[in-house]
Amino acid sequence: MTKIKFGIAGLGRIGKIHLDNLLRMDEVEVVAVADPIATELEMARKKGIELVTPSYETMINSKTLDAVVICTPTDSHANYVEIAAKAGIHVFCEKPLDLNLNRVVEVLSIVKASGVKLMLGFNRRFDKEFVKIRDLVEGGEVGVPHLVKITSRDPGAPPISYIKKSGGLFLDMSIHDFDMARYIVGKEVIEVYAKGAVLVDEKIGEAGDIDTAIVILTYEDQSMAVIDNSREAKYGYDQRIEVFGSKGMVQSNNNFHDSHRLYTATGVEASLPLHFFLERYAEAYKNELLNFLGCLINGDSLPVNGQDGLISLKIGLAALKSIKEERPVRIEEIQ
Amino acid sequence: MTKIKFGIAGLGRIGKIHLDNLLRMDEVEVVAVADPIATELEMARKKGIELVTPSYETMINSKTLDAVVICTPTDSHANYVEIAAKAGIHVFCEKPLDLNLNRVVEVLSIVKASGVKLMLGFNRRFDKEFVKIRDLVEGGEVGVPHLVKITSRDPGAPPISYIKKSGGLFLDMSIHDFDMARYIVGKEVIEVYAKGAVLVDEKIGEAGDIDTAIVILTYEDQSMAVIDNSREAKYGYDQRIEVFGSKGMVQSNNNFHDSHRLYTATGVEASLPLHFFLERYAEAYKNELLNFLGCLINGDSLPVNGQDGLISLKIGLAALKSIKEERPVRIEEIQ
Amino acid sequence: MTKIKFGIAGLGRIGKIHLDNLLRMDEVEVVAVADPIATELEMARKKGIELVTPSYETMINSKTLDAVVICTPTDSHANYVEIAAKAGIHVFCEKPLDLNLNRVVEVLSIVKASGVKLMLGFNRRFDKEFVKIRDLVEGGEVGVPHLVKITSRDPGAPPISYIKKSGGLFLDMSIHDFDMARYIVGKEVIEVYAKGAVLVDEKIGEAGDIDTAIVILTYEDQSMAVIDNSREAKYGYDQRIEVFGSKGMVQSNNNFHDSHRLYTATGVEASLPLHFFLERYAEAYKNELLNFLGCLINGDSLPVNGQDGLISLKIGLAALKSIKEERPVRIEEIQ
Amino acid sequence: MTKIKFGIAGLGRIGKIHLDNLLRMDEVEVVAVADPIATELEMARKKGIELVTPSYETMINSKTLDAVVICTPTDSHANYVEIAAKAGIHVFCEKPLDLNLNRVVEVLSIVKASGVKLMLGFNRRFDKEFVKIRDLVEGGEVGVPHLVKITSRDPGAPPISYIKKSGGLFLDMSIHDFDMARYIVGKEVIEVYAKGAVLVDEKIGEAGDIDTAIVILTYEDQSMAVIDNSREAKYGYDQRIEVFGSKGMVQSNNNFHDSHRLYTATGVEASLPLHFFLERYAEAYKNELLNFLGCLINGDSLPVNGQDGLISLKIGLAALKSIKEERPVRIEEIQ
Repeated sequence: MTKIKFGIAGLGRIGKIHLDNLLRMDEVEVVAVADPIATELEMARKKGIELVTPSYETMINSKTLDAVVICTPTDSHANYVEIAAKAGIHVFCEKPLDLNLNRVVEVLSIVKASGVKLMLGFNRRFDKEFVKIRDLVEGGEVGVPHLVKITSRDPGAPPISYIKKSGGLFLDMSIHDFDMARYIVGKEVIEVYAKGAVLVDEKIGEAGDIDTAIVILTYEDQSMAVIDNSREAKYGYDQRIEVFGSKGMVQSNNNFHDSHRLYTATGVEASLPLHFFLERYAEAYKNELLNFLGCLINGDSLPVNGQDGLISLKIGLAALKSIKEERPVRIEEIQ
Repeated sequence: MTKIKFGIAGLGRIGKIHLDNLLRMDEVEVVAVADPIATELEMARKKGIELVTPSYETMINSKTLDAVVICTPTDSHANYVEIAAKAGIHVFCEKPLDLNLNRVVEVLSIVKASGVKLMLGFNRRFDKEFVKIRDLVEGGEVGVPHLVKITSRDPGAPPISYIKKSGGLFLDMSIHDFDMARYIVGKEVIEVYAKGAVLVDEKIGEAGDIDTAIVILTYEDQSMAVIDNSREAKYGYDQRIEVFGSKGMVQSNNNFHDSHRLYTATGVEASLPLHFFLERYAEAYKNELLNFLGCLINGDSLPVNGQDGLISLKIGLAALKSIKEERPVRIEEIQ
Repeated sequence: MTKIKFGIAGLGRIGKIHLDNLLRMDEVEVVAVADPIATELEMARKKGIELVTPSYETMINSKTLDAVVICTPTDSHANYVEIAAKAGIHVFCEKPLDLNLNRVVEVLSIVKASGVKLMLGFNRRFDKEFVKIRDLVEGGEVGVPHLVKITSRDPGAPPISYIKKSGGLFLDMSIHDFDMARYIVGKEVIEVYAKGAVLVDEKIGEAGDIDTAIVILTYEDQSMAVIDNSREAKYGYDQRIEVFGSKGMVQSNNNFHDSHRLYTATGVEASLPLHFFLERYAEAYKNELLNFLGCLINGDSLPVNGQDGLISLKIGLAALKSIKEERPVRIEEIQ
Repeated sequence: MTKIKFGIAGLGRIGKIHLDNLLRMDEVEVVAVADPIATELEMARKKGIELVTPSYETMINSKTLDAVVICTPTDSHANYVEIAAKAGIHVFCEKPLDLNLNRVVEVLSIVKASGVKLMLGFNRRFDKEFVKIRDLVEGGEVGVPHLVKITSRDPGAPPISYIKKSGGLFLDMSIHDFDMARYIVGKEVIEVYAKGAVLVDEKIGEAGDIDTAIVILTYEDQSMAVIDNSREAKYGYDQRIEVFGSKGMVQSNNNFHDSHRLYTATGVEASLPLHFFLERYAEAYKNELLNFLGCLINGDSLPVNGQDGLISLKIGLAALKSIKEERPVRIEEIQ
């Protein structure tokens, strides 16, 4: 079997994870990486990667790639996807494609014309907890879903510099939850009402963002989802889902460091949830790439395609508009 | 010690519970009951109650009462409270005082002028689960509260006839949650956004009500609460609270029939939550009367007074207005 | 309906509980109590009990009793049961009947000849947790039971004076677990191996007792139970059972003060188990008397009879012999 | 840095796991494997291992190894360790060293004389659940340990052919628990009482073994441990520990497939424990090799040495003797 030849753009936190996971997959050969930082390139070279370069274009033009994994900052995603698509290279890209809706539409159209496959990195769809909930819901175990509840709280706020260019809470953080809301019950969202506040850190407010939010999503069949977000849960990364329906309810809980319970005269103590998304979603990162491989090798359909990214972005933009105009906003208003 | 002489108006489900609880309190003597149904009166007579009468006025005019417990249908509450207050009799009244805001204001003014004590039956404030959460929040264990989450789902919808005159989901069911939202963090609500749907039973929609709802409450300090309601949770009575704040998070869970876990080849099974509010809140019903007694005997301040009822009603009316006008509604708009 | 007329002997902690429970049962009239302490008698008189006397015999000879509840110290049980039986009065007696095997056999024979009903107070058989486990086991949910595990730890040791005359850990404390081991799987024990130690308090050792023990019971079909006991669990009353069988496993957990979980930067905290047997088994005490009433009124068979007391005593004596002789002891050796 | 050169003997289930783990460690180079099965060798060659051979001696004599991992059948362990030690090669060996006590003593003496390091594969010592319990116990959180409870049940019995040569339940399965009993509280065992039965499969009895057991271990300070074992837990691999002491109690639970809870009208359902030891202890297998590496590279002291294997074997032999002679057996009797 000839191996699928991969390039990786961006060796930041997530890029490194994808690199390590790809290096362990028998069907894959990582042949190139591109990153502006020399020490990262050196690290990659030591792992046996032939082409290490500061230039994305150089990597693409090397003509050796079957697929590329894009983990660079958000503002390069659209261009990099476009370049790869035009070169006939399949793309796995971290979300979001772009913060500008028109640009996303344009890129998706280029991708479509090129015939390459584009998968977006909504990693949570590949977490065993959420897959289980989705499977149970799909199997009808809770009947018709009436209410979806998503708790999604980060252990700490990112730097203000990141917040300023990330698109803010709804586009860099809640966007995962918007995708999850669609994924978990397989229904489309038609309306968004968002309420936000600055309760964690005033600097976040000064940067034009919020740090705490509740968002109500209305599905096409009038059932609803509610998401609660915070930038700072002092007890760790809090990622839970509940689906309530006509026949029952199903919940997932966080993943914990261990299961111990300590009973003493003063109370019962247990370990905290895993603190960081890299720990919690370590397996999910692996699984999403395995799914992408399945698409490339076996022609499986893409589990998360560009359209999914486009829709989540629209929900995020609707949430922003809802906050601004203090009213529910219909998705069809976002064009 | 002379005992406090009680009368009870209404011997329905809740009236009977109050009767049984009062009969077991050493400081209390139940001297009269009023109810239109002869068999209920006969039952009460067998329990040794001297005056049993179909007429509320007869009971009040017997001049023997120190206090009265009103558990009659909602539309009689305001009048009965007024009559008792004017007779100088302390009142424990099931919520709500009335569905009409002006009438509530009027009655509260009469009560105030009379000098009698009026306590409202927000029984959940006396449930050990919620008291514990409140105590921990008050003690600063979660820091400044940012998000309150209340899940409140009934095991089954009441008869359509009841729904028609009850004021609907927000005024007969969610009103408990509106009170809880204030109680649990000790902050006032300034804005309400409500989203509702008919997903359980079309007949509920035909009766002009909804059966499923999500309500966002905004507190005076911009922190938020979110309530999710359903008329029909097939797995039983679902009553949970979570408070998330600057230092952490605290949750309460439902109360279950028992703690067993059965492990077999097909999975792990456990018992369901208590199915009915009378089971879940049996102790709370006792505790609220003990608190009322404490007010009468020791002059303790009322833990739930008429003003609390008025505010919850305003939140409920704001929720109704929000649904109708599809926008957030400020409490000050409700006059 | 004429009410069943009850007398109560002994108004200590448990006597008071039985008194209060009986006073609330419609089918019961408590007509007499006997206790050496005048203030206890005065308390009972205030509750409306006609005959209050320091003399058990006076109570029995009053000719007014249908049934008697015996909650006096252990060394009086056998005599009091004998007196009641000879007077034709049904008996509910706290365990154990006596610490001397021959005396127990003798009393049971007198009871049998008299035709009165004798129920023993193995209250745990009426706890909802254990009833559930028993029902699931009986229903075949775990298949053929292979292993039973009973954890039974008291929150603190009783006074040394009590230990000296109680028969020690096996006869005053573990005896409940010996009964539970039989009840929970409906099988008889044929062999006992016990290992004990003094780890909590040296004074217990000086009094000739142990405070920590592990006991292996072998059932007639070679399946086994293991019990672990301690006089002092600093975190409260620890009462758990697990039954493992050919098809699966079922566990019960302790009952807790409340269900809260507090998440902060340092860990997750929860409430402790109920601390005291009176709290944990409050409902069980009620249920066992209701069962006794069912026997008297409807002729239901006795759920715990004198024979059950005899067998548990034999297991306890075998455990003592096992400790002394450092070997497994067969029940048939205990005569 | 020069890498540590490893050879692996035996590419069965566990050998493959060690191989994969070693291949991912930067400080390690796997230079040779020995296994009698040609297809396994071919698999290893494809992973880039230079020397693949059916002969253990050939591998050892290649003079290229710093360390060897021995995962062959039990009856070869002692000889292979001896050969490696004499060749000056460090050894990581799966337990047990041998079923014959004298042979173990002899090999340990050879190892000692050789100066090589010998670590035994008691993998559970490296499981995060048990490490946490050990850390809490060591930190004094439960005070002085009084009772240790170990539940250890396999999801299904091994083939009868394996049972016949494995040494039976106590030497192939419980031996992990004997080691755990020492590890978890850091105390030595002085006496063993074992009770066993054939309840799962008669064929196991015909093969001279038992399939269900309860073992009481007495520590040097009179505190106790109790282990319950079964060859067949239909619900999966059951591995739990509880330590009860003078200040409190700590428990670990199984690891589950996921955390979901499904509530429907018929009950609450959850996922089963991980079914197989390879899943449950996947991380532990990694950690134990990392610890071994730490010993080789940094000179860390061995976390599980040959002496630990010897002591666990003695406890196992004492358990066998206890079953046979139906009495508690002191470790010092085992010579």
